[in-house]
Amino acid sequence: MSSGTPVVVFDVNETLSDMAPMAGRFAELGAPGHLARLWFATVLRDGFALTAAGRSAPFAEIAAGVLRDMLARDGDVRDLDAAVAHVMEGFGELPVHPDVPGGVRALAEAGHRLVTLSNGSAAVAERLLASAGLRECIERCLSVEAAPAWKPDRRAYAYAAEICGVEPAGMVLVAVHPWDIDGAARAGMRTAWIDRAGGPYPGHFARPEIVVGGVGELPLRLAAADRPGPRR
Amino acid sequence: MSSGTPVVVFDVNETLSDMAPMAGRFAELGAPGHLARLWFATVLRDGFALTAAGRSAPFAEIAAGVLRDMLARDGDVRDLDAAVAHVMEGFGELPVHPDVPGGVRALAEAGHRLVTLSNGSAAVAERLLASAGLRECIERCLSVEAAPAWKPDRRAYAYAAEICGVEPAGMVLVAVHPWDIDGAARAGMRTAWIDRAGGPYPGHFARPEIVVGGVGELPLRLAAADRPGPRR
Repeated sequence: MSSGTPVVVFDVNETLSDMAPMAGRFAELGAPGHLARLWFATVLRDGFALTAAGRSAPFAEIAAGVLRDMLARDGDVRDLDAAVAHVMEGFGELPVHPDVPGGVRALAEAGHRLVTLSNGSAAVAERLLASAGLRECIERCLSVEAAPAWKPDRRAYAYAAEICGVEPAGMVLVAVHPWDIDGAARAGMRTAWIDRAGGPYPGHFARPEIVVGGVGELPLRLAAADRPGPRR
Repeated sequence: MSSGTPVVVFDVNETLSDMAPMAGRFAELGAPGHLARLWFATVLRDGFALTAAGRSAPFAEIAAGVLRDMLARDGDVRDLDAAVAHVMEGFGELPVHPDVPGGVRALAEAGHRLVTLSNGSAAVAERLLASAGLRECIERCLSVEAAPAWKPDRRAYAYAAEICGVEPAGMVLVAVHPWDIDGAARAGMRTAWIDRAGGPYPGHFARPEIVVGGVGELPLRLAAADRPGPRR
């Protein structure tokens, strides 16, 4: 289905950014660090629920609301507003994963157009990439805030394709989240799953075309996938 | 909008069933008990992602798949199949919350038709109610497995209304989950939020018509809501 060098569409949260420091933010408030993962899963759960119900809300609004609920119930927090602000501030200051800078530069040098497509705001992606010195490699930071719906609704991916002026089949969605791979595949995009931890891929989601351990493997894998030959 | 005694539609998981024992199931495997909450949030996240992408999968299939992934990554588990089976078995043997038996019987005695509507299977709800001696109070145990989509997609609620032969406005959805309240409200149902823990209601979801601390408060609150008078 591919024709020419595909446009690479990066998911942002956890795919480019390393969320590991979030546990520290919770710990600094005296709350269990493991709440960080529950928080992020719950934010997506609520955002997807709104999407399934045909609605939408800004990621940051849901993130702060879920956080407030969790800290009120599970945290021993005196000043709830300050605590929410502390965690949200940390979310806006995350580093990229170590494999990201080299991988992104190599993809750009290989001639790929690069964009991001996040359920979060474009501003968070802009800041993340700027702080990693990668902003100039990325053509556009796209957010579903300008699309008709969040990922994994098909319209979010269609929006990115339209903005980039290509068909979905001319794009490859790169993400650590199987739900994103699934949604992109169903929207007609090619897909690459970054599996940094080496885990199983859930059977309830459409499988990725490509599986890599980090962004750095993508240039060669994409080149190999596009090389004509007797491959399946 | 109501006319006559509303049909009461119960959500099942966490609304009727007490999920607290699930932490013990994880602990018995040597995995952290707090994974139980992360597991359930992740199952709903993945189920809602499929719903948002226009697809569906059985709850138990997603639940087992997420569990397998989590135990493989975070659990120190020798036999993964047996571990998954151990947790899933616990999910099928949960008790109801203490406020449920008296509350359900009082609603039935007050003349409400009672049904359940779950994203899980009807069989799990049947077993839960039977073990609590409440099966005869419930007219039908409905599952989204027979509907066009999971809750909170509007079509799941419309399915329940159609099966019961009433308009959505003639039903009141009872749930602990704000995402379920939101979806039901947008589908035209009346809503009652059970807030057993006394937490804040997230601002990104439509608010419930009624808030109660347990099922036992519902008969009087529904009767009061339906009494004509100078209430707002």
